[in-house]
Amino acid sequence: MKFELLFNTQDNSKEEKAYENLLKEFKSGEIGYYHLPETSQKFLDLDFSDINYDEVVVIGIGGSSLGTKTVYKMAVEYSPKPMIFLENPDPIDISSKLKTIKNPLIFVISKSGKTIETLSIFKEVINHFNLNPKAKNIKIITDENSPLDKFAASWELESFHIPLNVGGRFSVLSAVGIVPLLAAGIHPKELLEGAKEFRNSFFDKEEWHLCKKAALYANKHKDYPVNVLFAYSNILEDFAAWFVQLFGESLGKNSKEIMPVGHIGSIDQHSFLQLLMEGIGKKTVTFLKINDFKNNLTIPDIKLPFLEAVDYVNSHRFEELINKECEATKEALLSTNKYFIDEISIDNLNLKTTGKLIMYYEMLTSAIGSLIGVNTYNQPGVELGKKILKNKF
Amino acid sequence: MKFELLFNTQDNSKEEKAYENLLKEFKSGEIGYYHLPETSQKFLDLDFSDINYDEVVVIGIGGSSLGTKTVYKMAVEYSPKPMIFLENPDPIDISSKLKTIKNPLIFVISKSGKTIETLSIFKEVINHFNLNPKAKNIKIITDENSPLDKFAASWELESFHIPLNVGGRFSVLSAVGIVPLLAAGIHPKELLEGAKEFRNSFFDKEEWHLCKKAALYANKHKDYPVNVLFAYSNILEDFAAWFVQLFGESLGKNSKEIMPVGHIGSIDQHSFLQLLMEGIGKKTVTFLKINDFKNNLTIPDIKLPFLEAVDYVNSHRFEELINKECEATKEALLSTNKYFIDEISIDNLNLKTTGKLIMYYEMLTSAIGSLIGVNTYNQPGVELGKKILKNKF
Repeated sequence: MKFELLFNTQDNSKEEKAYENLLKEFKSGEIGYYHLPETSQKFLDLDFSDINYDEVVVIGIGGSSLGTKTVYKMAVEYSPKPMIFLENPDPIDISSKLKTIKNPLIFVISKSGKTIETLSIFKEVINHFNLNPKAKNIKIITDENSPLDKFAASWELESFHIPLNVGGRFSVLSAVGIVPLLAAGIHPKELLEGAKEFRNSFFDKEEWHLCKKAALYANKHKDYPVNVLFAYSNILEDFAAWFVQLFGESLGKNSKEIMPVGHIGSIDQHSFLQLLMEGIGKKTVTFLKINDFKNNLTIPDIKLPFLEAVDYVNSHRFEELINKECEATKEALLSTNKYFIDEISIDNLNLKTTGKLIMYYEMLTSAIGSLIGVNTYNQPGVELGKKILKNKF
Repeated sequence: MKFELLFNTQDNSKEEKAYENLLKEFKSGEIGYYHLPETSQKFLDLDFSDINYDEVVVIGIGGSSLGTKTVYKMAVEYSPKPMIFLENPDPIDISSKLKTIKNPLIFVISKSGKTIETLSIFKEVINHFNLNPKAKNIKIITDENSPLDKFAASWELESFHIPLNVGGRFSVLSAVGIVPLLAAGIHPKELLEGAKEFRNSFFDKEEWHLCKKAALYANKHKDYPVNVLFAYSNILEDFAAWFVQLFGESLGKNSKEIMPVGHIGSIDQHSFLQLLMEGIGKKTVTFLKINDFKNNLTIPDIKLPFLEAVDYVNSHRFEELINKECEATKEALLSTNKYFIDEISIDNLNLKTTGKLIMYYEMLTSAIGSLIGVNTYNQPGVELGKKILKNKF
């Protein structure tokens, strides 16, 4: 995995500060996500073979689903069991997904244990599958002693806990992601290993690019309040959504923000590139690409009459086309001199590199948050809407 | 359908100007999309019953797929045949979708007739299904006399034309959308009817809210350079992507932009709301909701121990929950006094209201573009990347 910064900035003191802030958070043990590569080891021996199931159903929203979806989508080709995510209280979505589920293992996931969408959908799932206390195919993932945890005890359901110092959007490597992925047959050992490798490498001062990028984003956030992630593959769609929550909720507070925008290449070259090329600028842009898709699908050497102008890609692999599109778009944007651009290339897409990418983005978020002076780990702004909602019933 | 502006601004001269600009574009016949409700009538009698097919495959990207996907997703419950979209030159995506296609009717769609992604994927589809000249199950949709059109003639394939004065991102009501939707069994007569109704109603000065909104967006675009669409239903996901292209490519030029951001409620309340509540503001926000999902799925009246705090939604329909979440979020954002907010409510989701919504957004885009002084209909910024790409092979 390669991290390339296409800008030359230096702010030694901010860069050092980013490093020191993260080291402090890590060493104090106050912030839990740094330690998940170790604390989640205990889940790796879980065995669901006593349960008969054909699908893994995740009932959860936001931090309780986005990370798991991300890893699933990036590893879906290797997943023995399909995963189905019930997130939105959209009746059409719930109805149509329930029709596809025959014999599920169900994970109900809510950190607070009182998420209205998740618990409402859970009730419909109970109703639909006629589920009862002691059901072996319902598992609960929540904070210890949350309302949902107490419910689990009362129904005698197996419950897995999220460390109290791990926030929802930083929880994919906790039970939240690890346990359902394992149940789907995606063995997450390498995921944790990759995350650990990146973290250790960072604290060994071998990932200084992260400090440089965090320092730049912090120094420029008032003039460049948007970060566009341009990810070149459909399998990175959910990663982009996960990134939006991570940056959005962590850094959008105290009248500050770095607004995350997720786009998929080359599709969104046909929707968003015009604005980047000729709009106001004032954004940072990150390109993310996969060098080896492990798929040799090739553009056939077929010459069609009147279409000779596109024959220059014949006999090249599709991965060459999509990645050269990424390169070309990057160079076109660089030529505008309007953006601070960086590129992340994944050499081989696998669970280990996925784990590295996750830890990289979490630590980058922490570093920026600590430099711009916000509390990266809370989300007080979402409470008002919840209060108003309750008064509407 | 109801359009509600939650701001009190008035700029009579700008509002009049928006109206006059659109009227001029409409009457001159220069801009073609206004006339598609009439010019596309000729496709409504098309009949594909001489072809044996089980899936409709669309090969296209950007304006050649997003609009059709939008309508398909909003009408999918009523579609007799599945539609599969081959857009991105992502080898994993293409391979996995090709595996699901057994007996396709294939539409190759490119306005310019030389889109590199579309034609490369088409070659793989030719290879995969062993297709030959005169194949009845390949149809071409492109500009008259484009390279792809000439190819169609040489292979003796049926070809449908896009009016030359209809741009890709404004083309969903042309052959681009109408013909493949019809082939899937989604009869688009009402789609055209809804679009026509909205257009006529606007020119009868019965949709002045559009002029007011366009005037506000134009007056404020330097200080409020972002428009967030918060659409409350999973079936609006593709609509949000279509909107991003429409606003992004049309308004992002001449060092100006109104950056479109699409979010789905209530899912993204769990990812993006924090930033809106406590970030820098400086955005306009549009809420879009469906009052009647035609789905009575109800939250069962199940009381679970320790989870009594969420029983207040029991026996309410899911559509009430998602729509009250929309209302609550809107009120929470209003209370910040940081945003200009409006709301679009669709009473009954059907092809007619979908057609109205499409025409509304297209005309809004034209109105804003004409007021901020950009050419709404071109996209010169995307050419440089294409040139660079070619040199990489």
